[in-house]
Amino acid sequence: MPVGQGGFPFLRACALTDPLHSPDDFEARLAACAARVEEALGKLLAGEPLPGEVYRPERLFKAMRHAALGGGKRLRPFLTLEAARLCGADNEGALRAACAIEMLHCYSLAHDDLPAMDDDDLRRGRPTVHRAFDEATAILAGDSLLTLAFDVLADPATHADAGVRAQLCLGLARAGGPGGMAGGQALDLAAEAASQPLERAAIERLQAMKTGALIRFSVEAGAIFAQAPDAERAALAAYGRALGAAFQVADDILDAEGDGAALGKRAGKDAARNKATLVSALGLPGAKARLAALTGQAVTALAPFGARAHGLEAAARFTAARNH
Amino acid sequence: MPVGQGGFPFLRACALTDPLHSPDDFEARLAACAARVEEALGKLLAGEPLPGEVYRPERLFKAMRHAALGGGKRLRPFLTLEAARLCGADNEGALRAACAIEMLHCYSLAHDDLPAMDDDDLRRGRPTVHRAFDEATAILAGDSLLTLAFDVLADPATHADAGVRAQLCLGLARAGGPGGMAGGQALDLAAEAASQPLERAAIERLQAMKTGALIRFSVEAGAIFAQAPDAERAALAAYGRALGAAFQVADDILDAEGDGAALGKRAGKDAARNKATLVSALGLPGAKARLAALTGQAVTALAPFGARAHGLEAAARFTAARNH
Repeated sequence: MPVGQGGFPFLRACALTDPLHSPDDFEARLAACAARVEEALGKLLAGEPLPGEVYRPERLFKAMRHAALGGGKRLRPFLTLEAARLCGADNEGALRAACAIEMLHCYSLAHDDLPAMDDDDLRRGRPTVHRAFDEATAILAGDSLLTLAFDVLADPATHADAGVRAQLCLGLARAGGPGGMAGGQALDLAAEAASQPLERAAIERLQAMKTGALIRFSVEAGAIFAQAPDAERAALAAYGRALGAAFQVADDILDAEGDGAALGKRAGKDAARNKATLVSALGLPGAKARLAALTGQAVTALAPFGARAHGLEAAARFTAARNH
Repeated sequence: MPVGQGGFPFLRACALTDPLHSPDDFEARLAACAARVEEALGKLLAGEPLPGEVYRPERLFKAMRHAALGGGKRLRPFLTLEAARLCGADNEGALRAACAIEMLHCYSLAHDDLPAMDDDDLRRGRPTVHRAFDEATAILAGDSLLTLAFDVLADPATHADAGVRAQLCLGLARAGGPGGMAGGQALDLAAEAASQPLERAAIERLQAMKTGALIRFSVEAGAIFAQAPDAERAALAAYGRALGAAFQVADDILDAEGDGAALGKRAGKDAARNKATLVSALGLPGAKARLAALTGQAVTALAPFGARAHGLEAAARFTAARNH
């Protein structure tokens, strides 16, 4: 992909002094973050009863762990932790908030994979939750991860300031609900069933809800957690908005070009089922140009932070160049 | 049912001076509350975009309205509003909190009715959400109601104090999540599939999670909303715990004795599908004695409030006497 190699000269300049601007080093850092998230998620989904719980339904927790552990780049939690760090907060509470966002993401995958939805058998190279368990358990595991995400965010262990906790809950609900991710998925299913392909504006709106809202919130959550000034929060929201759009265009390109083994799921499915994608609306070259433009917007939004934002810059470049 | 008629002499005595102790008047008050909740829920699920929303997927919102409007006694919101009033708070914010709890309840019904779960065609005498729409939409409508419940609770419009909002989110998540309602439903499905009937203690634990946790929280939420002193909150939690257990025993008795027309769903289903109920564990007379004892516990827990608690006392009596 061309963006990371040539699009942003100042990134290349930084690369001489900062190891993060080597893609390999960024991937190592992302992997280290993923390991931290995996461990924290494992604890949050472990067998010990939480305060207030009378009993644990073991099979349900196994399904929740299946849905949430053992895979994924953990891009969303990386964004939260990186944004929080950039705004001056780096602690276990930020990791909890990042895990809550990942729980919401994983719930959405478990439900999207259901037979009544996308009917997928594989996810990250493993059986989907309803294939590994059963459909009822997959529904309940998704419901439980969604609910637990708010449990984690509202818990004083995440942040001492109740105002931050309430803001995190509100932001996650807006990103995940009918005006965000769930609504985007509903529009996506409607588009599949429609006789006419969606126009570009409608696809972008759909994607902004289905994928973009949570990626944007993943970034904003770091700023909320760190109680960052409004200007920093707005800059990170702009970055997150562009990154979320870029992520989905990259996904569309990947589906059109990629192979199933690298994806851990069947490739070419979007076209096969008449999915609304930007590749179908813009063509492959048009989609790639759009991806480069969005990545540029994301990086530009980080300008107020200067070189300190290298982690988020690298994340944008990584997203644009993804072949995974 | 004997409890309301003879179990609590002081309730009969109060009835002379307080119209609420007439069951008819209580039902009128419950109906008035239900109308208020219906109107507020209708606004929360209306067609106008909420702040931060870019677009509304209309079919999804229709399904959410189908799931949440047009029926139900609205017992949970009544409990929240009554508990809040008892602790000195009675305003639009309390109504919003009550609606959020009802949204969570309605999401659980939509998901429980799905083919992979209880596979019900009727709910409150109307087609279930997946019958009126389709399975994918029912899953997403449930997901959306669940998520929107936290949106409403975390919104400053519900309460000016962020600490209250965060506590409400935490309480709802605990009541609804894998240690509460969702976990109880998972245990219930496991019990159905098991070869051995559950023992009484296991049934009570299951029911405390599946039904009890949210009824208890409905009451506690009023105390949280009103920022009630710990003693009042503890008394209301004890009331809510007993009421939640009583509600489920009454439901078990109703399923064993009731008729489908009054229930708005098929009766006798519990026995037909080997559901774990207290009627199967204790027999019908044993279950009725347990119901009377729990109702007594609920009313006793209200003692610190004196006559002011008449609304909640009547709710306990109404629950015990339910044939609806």
